[in-house]
Amino acid sequence: MGVPSMGRGGMRTSKEYRDSLKRMRPNVYKFGKLIEDVTTHPATRRSVEGHAQIFDAAHKDEYRDLLTTTSTVKGERISRYLSIIGSAEDMIRNVRMKRLMFNLTGTCTGGRCVGFNAINSMWAATYDMDQDLGTDYHSRLSAWLARAQSEDIALAGALTDPKGDRSKGPSEQKDPDMSLRMVEKGTEGDIVVRGAKVMIAGVAAANEVFVLPGTGYKEGEGDYAVSFAIPRDIEGLTVIEARHPSDGRDMEQGFDNPVDYGGITQGYLLFQDVRVPRERVFMAGEWKHSIKAVLNFIAPYRAAIGGCVAGQGDVIVGAAALMARANGLSERVFREKLTQMTVNNETTFGMGVASSVMGRLHPSGVWIPDAKLANVTKVHVASLPYETKRLAQDIAGGIAETGCLPSDEDIHSPKYGDLLQKYLKANCDGETRARIARLVEWLTIGEGVPGCMHGGGSPDGAKLMINALGEVENNIKLARKVANIKAEIPAPSAK
Amino acid sequence: MGVPSMGRGGMRTSKEYRDSLKRMRPNVYKFGKLIEDVTTHPATRRSVEGHAQIFDAAHKDEYRDLLTTTSTVKGERISRYLSIIGSAEDMIRNVRMKRLMFNLTGTCTGGRCVGFNAINSMWAATYDMDQDLGTDYHSRLSAWLARAQSEDIALAGALTDPKGDRSKGPSEQKDPDMSLRMVEKGTEGDIVVRGAKVMIAGVAAANEVFVLPGTGYKEGEGDYAVSFAIPRDIEGLTVIEARHPSDGRDMEQGFDNPVDYGGITQGYLLFQDVRVPRERVFMAGEWKHSIKAVLNFIAPYRAAIGGCVAGQGDVIVGAAALMARANGLSERVFREKLTQMTVNNETTFGMGVASSVMGRLHPSGVWIPDAKLANVTKVHVASLPYETKRLAQDIAGGIAETGCLPSDEDIHSPKYGDLLQKYLKANCDGETRARIARLVEWLTIGEGVPGCMHGGGSPDGAKLMINALGEVENNIKLARKVANIKAEIPAPSAK
Amino acid sequence: MGVPSMGRGGMRTSKEYRDSLKRMRPNVYKFGKLIEDVTTHPATRRSVEGHAQIFDAAHKDEYRDLLTTTSTVKGERISRYLSIIGSAEDMIRNVRMKRLMFNLTGTCTGGRCVGFNAINSMWAATYDMDQDLGTDYHSRLSAWLARAQSEDIALAGALTDPKGDRSKGPSEQKDPDMSLRMVEKGTEGDIVVRGAKVMIAGVAAANEVFVLPGTGYKEGEGDYAVSFAIPRDIEGLTVIEARHPSDGRDMEQGFDNPVDYGGITQGYLLFQDVRVPRERVFMAGEWKHSIKAVLNFIAPYRAAIGGCVAGQGDVIVGAAALMARANGLSERVFREKLTQMTVNNETTFGMGVASSVMGRLHPSGVWIPDAKLANVTKVHVASLPYETKRLAQDIAGGIAETGCLPSDEDIHSPKYGDLLQKYLKANCDGETRARIARLVEWLTIGEGVPGCMHGGGSPDGAKLMINALGEVENNIKLARKVANIKAEIPAPSAK
Amino acid sequence: MGVPSMGRGGMRTSKEYRDSLKRMRPNVYKFGKLIEDVTTHPATRRSVEGHAQIFDAAHKDEYRDLLTTTSTVKGERISRYLSIIGSAEDMIRNVRMKRLMFNLTGTCTGGRCVGFNAINSMWAATYDMDQDLGTDYHSRLSAWLARAQSEDIALAGALTDPKGDRSKGPSEQKDPDMSLRMVEKGTEGDIVVRGAKVMIAGVAAANEVFVLPGTGYKEGEGDYAVSFAIPRDIEGLTVIEARHPSDGRDMEQGFDNPVDYGGITQGYLLFQDVRVPRERVFMAGEWKHSIKAVLNFIAPYRAAIGGCVAGQGDVIVGAAALMARANGLSERVFREKLTQMTVNNETTFGMGVASSVMGRLHPSGVWIPDAKLANVTKVHVASLPYETKRLAQDIAGGIAETGCLPSDEDIHSPKYGDLLQKYLKANCDGETRARIARLVEWLTIGEGVPGCMHGGGSPDGAKLMINALGEVENNIKLARKVANIKAEIPAPSAK
Repeated sequence: MGVPSMGRGGMRTSKEYRDSLKRMRPNVYKFGKLIEDVTTHPATRRSVEGHAQIFDAAHKDEYRDLLTTTSTVKGERISRYLSIIGSAEDMIRNVRMKRLMFNLTGTCTGGRCVGFNAINSMWAATYDMDQDLGTDYHSRLSAWLARAQSEDIALAGALTDPKGDRSKGPSEQKDPDMSLRMVEKGTEGDIVVRGAKVMIAGVAAANEVFVLPGTGYKEGEGDYAVSFAIPRDIEGLTVIEARHPSDGRDMEQGFDNPVDYGGITQGYLLFQDVRVPRERVFMAGEWKHSIKAVLNFIAPYRAAIGGCVAGQGDVIVGAAALMARANGLSERVFREKLTQMTVNNETTFGMGVASSVMGRLHPSGVWIPDAKLANVTKVHVASLPYETKRLAQDIAGGIAETGCLPSDEDIHSPKYGDLLQKYLKANCDGETRARIARLVEWLTIGEGVPGCMHGGGSPDGAKLMINALGEVENNIKLARKVANIKAEIPAPSAK
Repeated sequence: MGVPSMGRGGMRTSKEYRDSLKRMRPNVYKFGKLIEDVTTHPATRRSVEGHAQIFDAAHKDEYRDLLTTTSTVKGERISRYLSIIGSAEDMIRNVRMKRLMFNLTGTCTGGRCVGFNAINSMWAATYDMDQDLGTDYHSRLSAWLARAQSEDIALAGALTDPKGDRSKGPSEQKDPDMSLRMVEKGTEGDIVVRGAKVMIAGVAAANEVFVLPGTGYKEGEGDYAVSFAIPRDIEGLTVIEARHPSDGRDMEQGFDNPVDYGGITQGYLLFQDVRVPRERVFMAGEWKHSIKAVLNFIAPYRAAIGGCVAGQGDVIVGAAALMARANGLSERVFREKLTQMTVNNETTFGMGVASSVMGRLHPSGVWIPDAKLANVTKVHVASLPYETKRLAQDIAGGIAETGCLPSDEDIHSPKYGDLLQKYLKANCDGETRARIARLVEWLTIGEGVPGCMHGGGSPDGAKLMINALGEVENNIKLARKVANIKAEIPAPSAK
Repeated sequence: MGVPSMGRGGMRTSKEYRDSLKRMRPNVYKFGKLIEDVTTHPATRRSVEGHAQIFDAAHKDEYRDLLTTTSTVKGERISRYLSIIGSAEDMIRNVRMKRLMFNLTGTCTGGRCVGFNAINSMWAATYDMDQDLGTDYHSRLSAWLARAQSEDIALAGALTDPKGDRSKGPSEQKDPDMSLRMVEKGTEGDIVVRGAKVMIAGVAAANEVFVLPGTGYKEGEGDYAVSFAIPRDIEGLTVIEARHPSDGRDMEQGFDNPVDYGGITQGYLLFQDVRVPRERVFMAGEWKHSIKAVLNFIAPYRAAIGGCVAGQGDVIVGAAALMARANGLSERVFREKLTQMTVNNETTFGMGVASSVMGRLHPSGVWIPDAKLANVTKVHVASLPYETKRLAQDIAGGIAETGCLPSDEDIHSPKYGDLLQKYLKANCDGETRARIARLVEWLTIGEGVPGCMHGGGSPDGAKLMINALGEVENNIKLARKVANIKAEIPAPSAK
Repeated sequence: MGVPSMGRGGMRTSKEYRDSLKRMRPNVYKFGKLIEDVTTHPATRRSVEGHAQIFDAAHKDEYRDLLTTTSTVKGERISRYLSIIGSAEDMIRNVRMKRLMFNLTGTCTGGRCVGFNAINSMWAATYDMDQDLGTDYHSRLSAWLARAQSEDIALAGALTDPKGDRSKGPSEQKDPDMSLRMVEKGTEGDIVVRGAKVMIAGVAAANEVFVLPGTGYKEGEGDYAVSFAIPRDIEGLTVIEARHPSDGRDMEQGFDNPVDYGGITQGYLLFQDVRVPRERVFMAGEWKHSIKAVLNFIAPYRAAIGGCVAGQGDVIVGAAALMARANGLSERVFREKLTQMTVNNETTFGMGVASSVMGRLHPSGVWIPDAKLANVTKVHVASLPYETKRLAQDIAGGIAETGCLPSDEDIHSPKYGDLLQKYLKANCDGETRARIARLVEWLTIGEGVPGCMHGGGSPDGAKLMINALGEVENNIKLARKVANIKAEIPAPSAK
């Protein structure tokens, strides 16, 4: 594991960050091949550069207030991504930070926000476990966090298990490994885990990975109730990067992937009997507390993604308006559409803020956003951006829609490139227009599209929670009172 | 003018409130006839009772925190409706208070919230005028407010002018009276006004009316830039109540208007040369400041109505679920629809909260919500409740939709009432089912429908503000930076 | 029963139609009182006048092709409302006729179209019964229809039973009368029926009523499987008219109900042991055929209402644009909204046309529209008009929204009417503007709103049919073939 | 040019079709390189195979009625794609044929339908030109068509010009070549053209290309008013294929592009002074007729794409349901969503059918669908499929959303492929599940997404036509009549 102790209060430079990645054991694969250096390999370089922008921005005056804070553990200035969210104000800054990072990278820097969220979720869960069970998980986590802050690590987070057949629970699967599980519990408190975590964002760009239980487990499923933090290059862990739409373009030169300093990866993490030392283990069998760890995770995560999609939405508004200009049309022609896009952006952002404000303080010192509002935010996150993207394609014209633009290689062909550039020009030169069109494609149907439908859980799951948290019975009381309805009406059973 | 000095720190009882209304000069008309006593006349009684619930609730422990606060002017416990909104927390409580009052009355208690908003708008505007122009409006307002708080008055607010031909400005109209104007400026600082304010909510239930300029005025339109507070029964003022859908039922007995303790009125206020004394005048010609007064009004108003429609939405969810039960169907059959209704409610509420939080403090001490978010809230307020109502009708079945239920008089007819009741019964007796159906009708297509489309301004106006506040140019910069687009692209002119 | 034999090929004048209604036994009630003459009583007059327009239009050259056709029974020119729909072209004309009648009356003339539909449904069902069971229902119906055509009767149709507790079937109700049923079967083939049909459109304006089974019945529920046609004033039948939003205005003078020649009624028909003679009975116990009668009814009904809501939508577009003009705003300002309203109108209309075209010919000679497309039409009918109405209120401004306009009586008050008219004027005089605002109110939240959510059945019912008719299994085959997926995947059971 | 005279009535086999393509001069490029054989090169092979399915299907009994018809020119059985649409029935079959072809290929076979549409557009336009101007274009077209039918050619169509700066007309551009134009008119009636047609579907799979004027031209723009048909491999014509999302996968082995027998291409056609002989020229300067040629094209095209997106929608429903099963979830869990997807499919299809039916017969014998309904269809085509795709991703889960699945190469890696397959399995083996996920990706955010937003013109253009064809003035008349409003109200001018 290659993160150096830096002897100062966190806040690495982006160079230090890249260097730390270079020093790590190569264990990330894509297209069947090992990636020797994630900072230079075209499949991961853009994602690393996106995360590097976080380090750069933390050193800039204009962003410092959002990107850094004071450690409640160590009292020093640290990256907000490694902080405990202690108040509504902190949580709002989290939402705003995510919007900012999408503004700067055009897409997701998922190798940090899930880890950030995982710390906070387990901060509360370990506190509760220690209170209830007399364990010492919270102090372990506190010690780990102090070091993580000192070293200013990039921390990914891993929640989702393969799960296997969705009609069956973890312990009912034919193959017991379909959710990550302990296969050995050492006498020293160390554990050995086997299984996988899948679709994990930003692992290639991370120094460590914080693992959470994948869901709430029941009696007899204790081996699945595990949480720990590991170096990304720990022995026994292999990461396979998933492929994106158009990711072949990563391997090419030219502007067909139009963004050099931002990009997403989602990895499959294969745990082949990975041994985790005691001081990195934060749950090991306490199945009764697994549901809390998940719920603590869900509320802030679903609140904060309201900022994410707003941040990308800002860029989409800009790209669509710029495309209109490049086509020779005033963006005022599209005022109704651009306004709707802004309404969508401000709605997911605003709902994230509202979830933050209406929260409550957990005894451990973690601020937990309002679950109902956070889940409503998620529902909007799973639908409004789709409208925003559709409107962007509507505004941008056929050139930016899909498959209607020759490749960079063709546009620069010595044989006919000049002709293509001639016919692509409009209110600007042809290459510029093509670049903008590629940006719209990247944002709406290309590699820059983050998985906001199921990221942070499915909208159907969010709706179930809204339904559970919705107070239909209480609303019925209000209705009865308003209309002075006294008669008893038994609730019929659903057929 | 009949509000007594009460010799204690505000907080009248509902009886004192009703008594104060009874003592006022009758000047409210409907259906061509003078209403002698607004507290008993069927056309206004329900609205008065809705407002009376505010006074009752302020004395209850469970609601005190929302409905009262400490006066920044006098240091005593006062009604929140007469307070200065001094922080994000205050503003959030405003949003929650509105949700609560819709919960309790099923509809709008508009005779207080516009006045509340007007005080705050002019608190900032008078401060600015005094700073800029050396006037003493702010201290006049402060003195008036101290008395208003002591007397715990119900204060309506009046903004909308008749305006005449919308293609022309106030000073271009054939008839100069189409916006309210000063026709005389007395030597003592008193003014005489002529014109009208139209569609003014809750005037019949109010002790006083706070008048604002209707829009931002330009040079030469100074006579229109007026603001003042007057007793509702002042000489020269006549109020004509507008009619609502189904308001004929107000005049009947029985449950066809199913709500006894809530109701809306909207009045046309005819000012026939009303003389306003100096101490009640807060703007008199300062046209340059009129736009600020309006903008100060718009942001908190459009934020807070997010709470209003959520509050009615809560009752609609309850009424629809109760109707389903009465029909013999489990509300679980309608889970998807009820969840969507809850999403709609929480969205307008959440956006109101977010607008509140992201605001700023005016030097006068007034907290002003974020204008962009507040206008986004308004856009949702003008659309989501329509879906909520449609879904309620969808769930409730034909009986509650429109025109599919005999009158109370028929249901109790000695000739055939027993047959109607027999055929109306389902999972409860026929009359109860009919009452619930009337409640759904009242909430979705009847008298309980507040004018949320244009109340607080039109959605098109909100969209114009979002567009103006939306940062397309800034978003273009973000897009350029993300895709590293350097070429200059001139903005084409709109054709 | 008062319809005269006219000795000519149908096609009464509107005067003959009104006269026939006057001659009938008064058995219609509203507000607890008997209506002596439905043609003059304010509660029913407008509905009668709406239906009278059908008779007038049938005599006009421009409408003849839509409103009349040649009888397949008698070979003479007859009202289309009494015809057998024999082809796609006939069915399209039905859709267009409905659009026309909404264009002319602003609302529903439901006292004819349900009857029209019922004839056609039972034309096929009686044919099938005779084929299967050797009965003679089809010839009875044919004879009845020949006379109905000769006399050019206005024929309502009645489908919906009270149903009682929706969680229980007709035969499981505590009270066996919750669906209309035979209580006696005479030796001559006559039957006696008891129960009710509820929410029946246009009965006050009809000469006869065609009764259908309310749903598909199962074994042991034969007494509920009844169909017959009766004079509206038959002994033992009592009609109670339901009340509409704002129907109090019917009883007033003035323009607050702005439409004089159109209006809806929905009646509760109470059958107190009504004896129906043999020649008017078309189903009497054949429960196996009841589901077909209903399905035959549903497809053309749900197709044709696509025309209805488009026809009212046309008037809504016009009213909104006229209101904009009256306010002094060009309707071009609202082009996006008006275009969306037109899209909505053409969508329900177009889907109705498509359902018509893609149908099939029943062996009896009845053309039956495509069920899947007809149910999709219904889904749109239950949602798009709500958007159209919302947009109309959006365009029209606060004056037309709800409760923001004084009554006709106030506008003409000798005391202050001139002032109200002064302040209501804009780009036209105040009274004209008020009249247009009332029209918008009537169309969007008032008495002119037809019950398109549940009329012709609930949207949820339509969705169930679409799901049943949707070919998911076939679509899965297509998907497999396109991606060459060979492995067997068992369908999991729904939890 | 390689299409042989086949000496029989059209109806080639797919082998004859592929052979004809092989014989053509290579002039198609992608990624900077010449494609020697479009039938085998991975960039074009799938598109050719998609078109080959048309030839195969025409020989199958179950599809013959849709895919073939009798030539009105030659009396023989021919491909429908080369026929004159002579009736509403023909047009409906066109809509159904498109739905079928999307069912079979999963995507667009655009190399035939635009050409088909172009023939019909010019059939009417040449008839009108000959009538008005005494030209002989119609007989030229008739002769060309007879041969095309005999040879059963695959005919692409080309409409869209580069256009340059959208704020300027064709003749105002700095570069006159921004729309295709005649640069020489030969004495023999031959013409020489220069310029480009861009985003032209299916050219690589076509034998010939039918070129239309790109818009309606005005006086002085006659050189742009050209129409002609040319062999795809004519001298002077170069085709550059545009790139699609994920088209890098075409070059790979394995299932990451999951569809082998379907695919889209869109080409940029560069005309470097191409000489077109007289018998292939159907418009050459008659600018007054250019708008008709375009309008004749728009109506049937926008009607028929209603079938296209329904056809892909069918596959999307199937893929989503299959994915649910593979995940171990019953598709009944998603009934509401699947039903909505079916509603969307049937709506575009139904509107296409309705546009077809409500058309009119042009004197030349071409049936032209209703323009208003066809443009409404286009509006739905540009929005409903986006919802269908969003719902598919919602149902399918994270694996199918975006970037959450390793590549085929990884899944078959000797090092860790077995582990990936282990963790990908659910209710079926891991590879099958991955294949289905790729299909969902291909259909919703991948290479199978056709450009339905701007294909056949932009939705904004469609809305402008709906607005122009919408009868607001007529609707205002209806509204006036319904409410008996007599006063004149002048139409205000838009500000």
